[in-house]
Amino acid sequence: MDALINDIEIIKAKTTKINDVDFDNLTFGKILTDHMLECDFKDGKWQAPKVVPYQPITLDPSAKIFHYGQSVFEGMKAYKDADGTVWLFRPLDNFKRLNISSKRLAIPELPEDYFMNGLKALLKVDSDWIPRNEGSSLYIRPFIFASGKGFHASPADEYKFIIACAPSGSYFSGEVKVLIEEKYSRSANGGVGFAKAGGNYAGQFYPTQLAVDKGYQQVIWTDDNTHEYIEEAGAMNIFVRINDTLITGPTSDRILDGITRKSIIELAQSKGIPVEVRKITVSEVVEAAKNGSLKEMFGAGTAAVISPISGFGYKNEDYDIPEMEDAYASFLKKHITDIQTNKSEDPFGWRYKVE
Amino acid sequence: MDALINDIEIIKAKTTKINDVDFDNLTFGKILTDHMLECDFKDGKWQAPKVVPYQPITLDPSAKIFHYGQSVFEGMKAYKDADGTVWLFRPLDNFKRLNISSKRLAIPELPEDYFMNGLKALLKVDSDWIPRNEGSSLYIRPFIFASGKGFHASPADEYKFIIACAPSGSYFSGEVKVLIEEKYSRSANGGVGFAKAGGNYAGQFYPTQLAVDKGYQQVIWTDDNTHEYIEEAGAMNIFVRINDTLITGPTSDRILDGITRKSIIELAQSKGIPVEVRKITVSEVVEAAKNGSLKEMFGAGTAAVISPISGFGYKNEDYDIPEMEDAYASFLKKHITDIQTNKSEDPFGWRYKVE
Ligand SMILES: Cc1ncc(COP(=O)(O)O)c(C=O)c1O
Ligand SMILES: Cc1ncc(COP(=O)(O)O)c(C=O)c1O
Repeated sequence: MDALINDIEIIKAKTTKINDVDFDNLTFGKILTDHMLECDFKDGKWQAPKVVPYQPITLDPSAKIFHYGQSVFEGMKAYKDADGTVWLFRPLDNFKRLNISSKRLAIPELPEDYFMNGLKALLKVDSDWIPRNEGSSLYIRPFIFASGKGFHASPADEYKFIIACAPSGSYFSGEVKVLIEEKYSRSANGGVGFAKAGGNYAGQFYPTQLAVDKGYQQVIWTDDNTHEYIEEAGAMNIFVRINDTLITGPTSDRILDGITRKSIIELAQSKGIPVEVRKITVSEVVEAAKNGSLKEMFGAGTAAVISPISGFGYKNEDYDIPEMEDAYASFLKKHITDIQTNKSEDPFGWRYKVE
Repeated sequence: MDALINDIEIIKAKTTKINDVDFDNLTFGKILTDHMLECDFKDGKWQAPKVVPYQPITLDPSAKIFHYGQSVFEGMKAYKDADGTVWLFRPLDNFKRLNISSKRLAIPELPEDYFMNGLKALLKVDSDWIPRNEGSSLYIRPFIFASGKGFHASPADEYKFIIACAPSGSYFSGEVKVLIEEKYSRSANGGVGFAKAGGNYAGQFYPTQLAVDKGYQQVIWTDDNTHEYIEEAGAMNIFVRINDTLITGPTSDRILDGITRKSIIELAQSKGIPVEVRKITVSEVVEAAKNGSLKEMFGAGTAAVISPISGFGYKNEDYDIPEMEDAYASFLKKHITDIQTNKSEDPFGWRYKVE
């Protein structure tokens, strides 16, 4: 493997910004490391990736990313354990999902070794940037966008694949209350909701702002046809616990197949927690909140890890979800982060050592 | 007005590319003029727009356009008549729609004078680029994208508004056959389909490629829930003529409120053509094609003007729409382009003189 890592050309930054960084007070995704991976698609193929100093991107104003939203991305994290070893979590799943997203957006798929070896080379060069503090990690953002030119509404002939990294703390600060959406939607049947396509996120900003103005932090999306089924949140899949059963909706072409979600399903099952993967109606959640059987609700995603939800709004009513002892959320969060950060055994083989 | 036009700062290009351009053989949207309008949103407000030499844009890799598809655009055309006077077509409608799109995408709305005066100043500086040839025009692309930084999935704090122009010939070359879509969708109820949001276009590329591979030029989108209603095409609204009635679907939050569409409705009505604005089912179109009452089908949009459709595919069957004499498409196209290019009276007040 090492030979392949070394196959990646490295152009080192002349200076480092790391001394300006307060690693004890990291926010999310604002401070970027010294390097990035860069790889261009042109002349019909992906060119060799390179690690280069983190630097601005220069594009023609007619580059298709500015006009037609042709872009996809991924979100991953790297962790450093007590021995200084660097770990990723199921990175091949991110790679595969990136290509699934690319295909739906008519972006050429990436070779696996460009992604994996490029990522590993970058993490080696920027290894000092990987936080060791509890609750912090290096957030990794692989993304691809259309750099090819022209106003014709058709796929570009050139693309850029970049991996940039940001040492980050937690995604949410404070409690998370959600609004169950009755009007706006995130995705269509037969649309791009299952892809991590840029446009899926911008479309959520306005409805989310309306929810924030009403005192919520996030929107829970429902299906666009009836608004009767709970789908997912902005960048998290959703779990509810009714009595002792943990329930999450099935994935579909409207919903992202989250890596945290599927890991939680497996982890919970292995711990003897009853898990159901089935459609969740808004009315059963409201009913359960009313009769006290709704014990927990939480979001699950790479950025937010597991985020307990303290209440939800629906049809102008607010429902509290009181914090409980022995919550599944804290139990599962501890188990999954212990695996991620090499503090426990990894019976599932999810952890991936970067060497 | 002139004083305001002159309020726009102009920085002229040192050289011109115009002598390299073959105005008799223009394609669509590939050759850009010498200048562009540029206007930044920062510190909470839109800064004064400037006309500057057409030049590359430099952005941080964490600029939100690369990650979250936060962008909107417009498409307009400028025409030069025999006297050299420059005309736009209903430009205020484009301005208003841009702000409608921006609002849905959580992008700050633009002041009208920045848009209109900026556009007029740009057209003045690049006036020599406006083609006079029949069938050609200056395609104008106003667009706004998120230039603000950070990986948090929330609206950016900085944006760029740019207008770039490309002397262009026709959008389609050759006949247009369409595929009525049964699986994929363009937009969701409660989504962003009515906005000219970048992400709406990238999502169409893959299904369109599948259609192109089968020998069609465009997809006709249907509703994402039942796929039983005809909605619109990639960058055109759709009209069908059954017997002598011209029918187009109503706009909705899934469909772009096209300026060409609404102009055609008004124009046709004023010429005594019976027009119906109502939902169109795929089955009635198939039925009409079978029994010979489907006389015409055409797309309508700024880029494509009026594009007759020569046939459609649905459920693995192909249906021809034979060319007819006295087609509404050619009649309406002639009338609308005569108005646009100042060859006829403009009883509707649609034409807008640029001075
Ligand atoms: C829309 C959406 N849903 C769910 C998730 C969670 O997926 P994962 O656990 O793979 O990070 C994300 C974020 O990645 C997302 O963007
Ligand atoms: C999706 C879509 N529908 C319809 C149209 C036609 O609208 P207009 O006539 O305003 O150009 C366009 C292009 O502008 C479009 O992008």
